[in-house]
Amino acid sequence: MEEFNILALLIILAGAWVGGTAAKKLGYPPILGELIIGIILGPAVLGLLESSEMIAVLAEVGIILLMVYIGIEINFRDLGKASWPGLLAAIGGFIVPFGLGYFTIIYFGGTNIAALFVAIAVGVTSLATKSRILVDLKLLNTRIAYVLMAGALISDTLALIIFAGMLSFVDAGSIDTWGLIWVAGKAILFFLLTALAGYFLLPLLGKILSDKKVKSRTFHFTLILLIVFIFCELAELAGLHSILGAFMAGLFIRDGVFNRQISKEIHDIFHDVSIGFLAPIFFVSAGFHVTLEVFQTDLLLLTVVILVAMVGKIVGTAVFYLPSGYGWREGIAVGTGMNGRGAVEIIIAGIGLEMGIISDDIFSILVFMAILTTLSVPVLLTWTTNWLRKRGELINQETRKGTLILGANPLGLYLARHLKENEEVVIVDSNRDLAENSRAQGFSTVTGNILKEETMESAEAFDTGTFIALTSNNEINLLAAQLAHDAFFVPRNIVLVAPHQGGAGVELLDRIGASSMFATQTELAPWILKIDSGEVEEVTEEVEEKISTRTWLKQNRSEDSKFLPLLIIDQEGKKRPFHFHDEIEAGEKVLYLR
Amino acid sequence: MEEFNILALLIILAGAWVGGTAAKKLGYPPILGELIIGIILGPAVLGLLESSEMIAVLAEVGIILLMVYIGIEINFRDLGKASWPGLLAAIGGFIVPFGLGYFTIIYFGGTNIAALFVAIAVGVTSLATKSRILVDLKLLNTRIAYVLMAGALISDTLALIIFAGMLSFVDAGSIDTWGLIWVAGKAILFFLLTALAGYFLLPLLGKILSDKKVKSRTFHFTLILLIVFIFCELAELAGLHSILGAFMAGLFIRDGVFNRQISKEIHDIFHDVSIGFLAPIFFVSAGFHVTLEVFQTDLLLLTVVILVAMVGKIVGTAVFYLPSGYGWREGIAVGTGMNGRGAVEIIIAGIGLEMGIISDDIFSILVFMAILTTLSVPVLLTWTTNWLRKRGELINQETRKGTLILGANPLGLYLARHLKENEEVVIVDSNRDLAENSRAQGFSTVTGNILKEETMESAEAFDTGTFIALTSNNEINLLAAQLAHDAFFVPRNIVLVAPHQGGAGVELLDRIGASSMFATQTELAPWILKIDSGEVEEVTEEVEEKISTRTWLKQNRSEDSKFLPLLIIDQEGKKRPFHFHDEIEAGEKVLYLR
Repeated sequence: MEEFNILALLIILAGAWVGGTAAKKLGYPPILGELIIGIILGPAVLGLLESSEMIAVLAEVGIILLMVYIGIEINFRDLGKASWPGLLAAIGGFIVPFGLGYFTIIYFGGTNIAALFVAIAVGVTSLATKSRILVDLKLLNTRIAYVLMAGALISDTLALIIFAGMLSFVDAGSIDTWGLIWVAGKAILFFLLTALAGYFLLPLLGKILSDKKVKSRTFHFTLILLIVFIFCELAELAGLHSILGAFMAGLFIRDGVFNRQISKEIHDIFHDVSIGFLAPIFFVSAGFHVTLEVFQTDLLLLTVVILVAMVGKIVGTAVFYLPSGYGWREGIAVGTGMNGRGAVEIIIAGIGLEMGIISDDIFSILVFMAILTTLSVPVLLTWTTNWLRKRGELINQETRKGTLILGANPLGLYLARHLKENEEVVIVDSNRDLAENSRAQGFSTVTGNILKEETMESAEAFDTGTFIALTSNNEINLLAAQLAHDAFFVPRNIVLVAPHQGGAGVELLDRIGASSMFATQTELAPWILKIDSGEVEEVTEEVEEKISTRTWLKQNRSEDSKFLPLLIIDQEGKKRPFHFHDEIEAGEKVLYLR
Repeated sequence: MEEFNILALLIILAGAWVGGTAAKKLGYPPILGELIIGIILGPAVLGLLESSEMIAVLAEVGIILLMVYIGIEINFRDLGKASWPGLLAAIGGFIVPFGLGYFTIIYFGGTNIAALFVAIAVGVTSLATKSRILVDLKLLNTRIAYVLMAGALISDTLALIIFAGMLSFVDAGSIDTWGLIWVAGKAILFFLLTALAGYFLLPLLGKILSDKKVKSRTFHFTLILLIVFIFCELAELAGLHSILGAFMAGLFIRDGVFNRQISKEIHDIFHDVSIGFLAPIFFVSAGFHVTLEVFQTDLLLLTVVILVAMVGKIVGTAVFYLPSGYGWREGIAVGTGMNGRGAVEIIIAGIGLEMGIISDDIFSILVFMAILTTLSVPVLLTWTTNWLRKRGELINQETRKGTLILGANPLGLYLARHLKENEEVVIVDSNRDLAENSRAQGFSTVTGNILKEETMESAEAFDTGTFIALTSNNEINLLAAQLAHDAFFVPRNIVLVAPHQGGAGVELLDRIGASSMFATQTELAPWILKIDSGEVEEVTEEVEEKISTRTWLKQNRSEDSKFLPLLIIDQEGKKRPFHFHDEIEAGEKVLYLR
C-alpha cells in the first residue's frame, strides 16, 4: 500500500483552513480560498503537494457527503415557494451561458461532450456564501434576495439533472436508437426509483424508528450513510455518477422524516465532516490539477470562457427575468448575484477531468472561471443593488413571513393586534381559556404546549419569520425560542426576560442569537393588569436620528420609568416589535405604553 | 486512479451494521460482529470483497479518529481515581500474558519483534462494550466494575506506551548505542512535547477562543482535526505510528479545554464518524486478512496463543490483585472481565501486518484470539460474579458518588439530611438566603445559578452520582438535569415535575433518561409549608415483595392520598430517593411523609 501520508493531509487541511478563513474574512465563500490555496500548494506554483490515491479517496468521500449536505439544504418547501421570478432567473441564468459555453468550445475545436461539460460548468449557479453576502449588503429582506435564493436552489437541481442526462450519453456516442432509449431509460428509472423510495420508503422508515422509539444518533447516522451509499450505487448502476445518488438521498433526508432533534444533529455532522474536513480536501486538490500555462497557451479561450460565463449569466438572467414584470434592472442585479460558480461547478469539472473528457487545460480554465466569477459577485452585486437603491427600486420582501407569539395573555394579544396590521400573526398558548379568548378576538390561535414539536408545527413555525415568547416564565420562553431556532430555523427569536433571581437569564439568549423583548428585563404581570384595567395609554414618538433600541431606552427611561416600548413603526407604517438587537432609523417611530 | 468502489463501501458498511447490531443484541461489542462479518465477506469465506487502496485509506482515517475518541474517553480524573486495585489489575493483566505471549512466539520460532507484537496484542485489555455488560450483569455499582473500568483505562494507556517504545526499536535492530539512544530519545521527546502542548497550549488556545467568543462548532472541529494531524505527524517524525499521536491528542482534547457545549458536540461527531462510519471499515477489512487455514496449518499455535491469552490474563490479574487485599476470587472475577480484546488489539495487529512484521497467519490467530476472548467475557464474568454473589463477596462501590440537590428549600434540606447519612450531599441554590440557611445547617452548599456551568463545576457535578432537581419550576429542573446529563455526564438525574398546564412536562425527561422524583407529579409548595410548620410525620413501611416504585405508589395512594414517598431504605440502612425508574426489593423499606 502506498504510504498513508499524514503530512500531506495536514498541509491540505491547514491550507484549506487558512485559505477558507481568509476568504470568509473578505466576504467570499471558503471554497474560493481553498481553490487558490490548492493552486499555490500544488504543482502549478510551489509544487509542495500533488494528487495521490489517498487524497483522491478522501476527496471522493468528501464530495459525496457534501452533495448529501447540499441535498439536505434544498428544501422542497422552499422550492415550492420559489415562484415564477426565481424559476425565470434560474432558467435564463442557466440556458444562455450553457448555450454560449457549448458553442464556444465547439468553435475552439473541442469535442461535443467536452463542450457539454463546459456548458454545464458555465451554466451552474452558486450563491457566494449564501445568505452571508446578502447580510453584508443588507439585502436579506429584499425581493432580490428572495429570488436569488430560490433561483440558486432551482439552478443546482436543474444543473444536476442535465448533468445526469449528459452523463448517460457520454458512452452512448455511437450506439443505436434502442441503446439510446435504454441509456435514457436507466437514468429516468434512477430518478423515479430514488424519488419514490425517498418519498415513500424513507418516511415509513422514519415512522418505524420513531414508533420503536429508536433514539440513537449513531444508529441513525449509520443508517443514513447506508441509504446514501445505496442511492450512490443505484446512480452508478444507472450509468450516472455517484454524486447524483448522494444528492437525491440528501433531498429526501429531511425535516420530519426522522426525529427532528436527531435530524438536526445528523445535519450538523454532515455539515462538519464535509465542510470542515473532507470537502476542502477535494477543493484544495482540485487546485493541484490547475496549470498556469493556460495563461500563455490558451489565453484567448480562457478570456472567452470567462466572458461568456459572466455576460451569458447576467444577460441571460435579465432577459428571461423580463416576464416577471420586475424590470430589467432588477434582472441584472439578480444576474450579478447568481454569477458565482462554486462547489457544484468544480465537482462537475473534476468529474469531467477524471473521466478524461476535458483536458487539464480546460479544467484549469474552469477553475479560474469559478474563481473570477465568484470574486465578481460582491463587487457587481454592490453596484447593481446600490443602483436600484438609488432609483428607489430595491423592493422589500421577506422569505419567511409572519409572527408567532407565545402567550395569549392581554399583552400578547395587544402586541398581536398591532402586528396583525402588516402580517400574519399566530398565537400559541397551552391554557385553553386564554387560547379560546384569543380565538374569539379573531386571532388565529393554536392551543398546545409550545415545547412540543407538534404544537410548533401546527402553528406553522416553519414559515414563520419571527417568534416572540411572551410568557411570565423565563425558562419556557427560552426553551421555546431554542426549539424555534434549532428545530424550526426561525430567524428572529425575541424572548421576554423577566428580572429573576437565578434560573435562565439573558446570557442564554446568545447561543441562539435571540434578542430580549422590550430591550430590557421586564415583568409581565403589572402590564397585564394595566392592560386589563384599561389603564394604559399609547404614545408614539418619532426618532430623529438613527439609534439603537437600548440607547433609545436608556435615554427615555431616565425621564419616565413607567413605560413599555412595544413597537417600532417605520415610515411606511409597518410595525415591528421593540427588542434589544434592533436599531431605530431616523424618521421611524416608537410606540410605547404608559 | 483505481475506481472508487461505492459497492464495496456499501457492502462493508451494511455488513458492519448487521454484524455490529447482531453482536450488540447478544450483549457483545459491535467490533466482534464486524470482525466476523469481515471474515465471512472476505477472501477467507465468501470472497465477495478484498482489501483495496480505497478501503485502506478510509480504514486508516477511521482508526485515527477512533484513537482520538478513545483518548477523549480516557479521563485523567478517572485515571486519578483508578487507585491501587485498578492499577494492580491492569499491570498484572498486562505483564503476565505479555510475557507468556512473547515466549510462545519465540518458542514457535518467531522473530523477536513479531513476538513483541503478539505479546502486546495478548496483553491488551478491552472492556466488552464498557458499561453495557456491567449493566446487563447488574454490576454497575460493584467494586468489580470500578476496578474493571479503571483497569481497562490504565491498560489501554500502558499498552500504547509500550507499543510506542517497541515501535521505536523496530528498525533499530542493528544500530549502535548512540543510535538506540537517539531512537528512544525521539519517542520520549514525542511524549514530552505532546503532553506539554496538550497540557499548556491547548487550554491556552481554548481560552483564547472563548475570550474571542468563537462559538462555531465547525471551526472547532476543523481546529481539533488539525491538532490531531499535527500530533500524528509528530508521532511519525518520532518514528512512532500516527495512532499514538491521535491518542495523545484525544487525551488532551477534554472537558474544560474548549467550550463545554461545543466539546460535547465534537465528541459526538468523533464518536459517530469513527464508530458509526469509518472505524467499522477498519474492523471489517481486518477480517479480509484472516485466513482459515491456520486451523489446519497452525492449530497448535492458535490454541496455545488463545490459552496463553486467557489463562495469562485471568491468572495474571488475580495474582497481581492479591496485594489489594480483596481476595483471589475477586481477582479472578476482575481477570475474566478484563479478558476481552478489542479495537486496540486489532489496530496493533493490523499495524504489525502492514509493516510486514507479523504474517497473515499470526494476524489471523490474533483476530481469532480477539473474537474468542471477547466471546468469553460475558460467560466467564457471569460465572465468577455469581460465584462471588453466592458467597456474599460481591462488594458494592460506586464510581461516582454523592448527590447534588438543586433547591435549598425545606424539602430539599429534609431530603439532604437523610441522604447525608450515607454519602456526600451538595446543595445548590441561587437564592442567597436559602443557601446561607442550608450552609448554617451544616450542608456543603453552593450559591449560584445551576444553569451556569461554573456553578455545576463548583458543586463538583463531575464526580456526582445523582442529581436531584427540586425547585418549583419544572423548566429550571429540566434544564438543569439536561446540563447535568449532557455536560457533566451525571448518570442518575431525578427531576421534580409539578403538575402543570403546558411548559416542560414529563415527556421531556426521556431524552436524558431522567426519572421523576416521588414517582409522580408533585406540587412542592404544600410540602414546604408542612415541613416548615412541623406538620409532617415520617412513616416507614417495609415492602414484602419486589415492586416498582410506581406500582407501590398506586397501591398505597389509593389508601391515603396525602403522603409523599421520600426515600427507599435498603436492608443495610442505605437510603436512596424515591423516584419513578426504580424498583423496591423485598425487605427494603419506603420512608414517606404525611
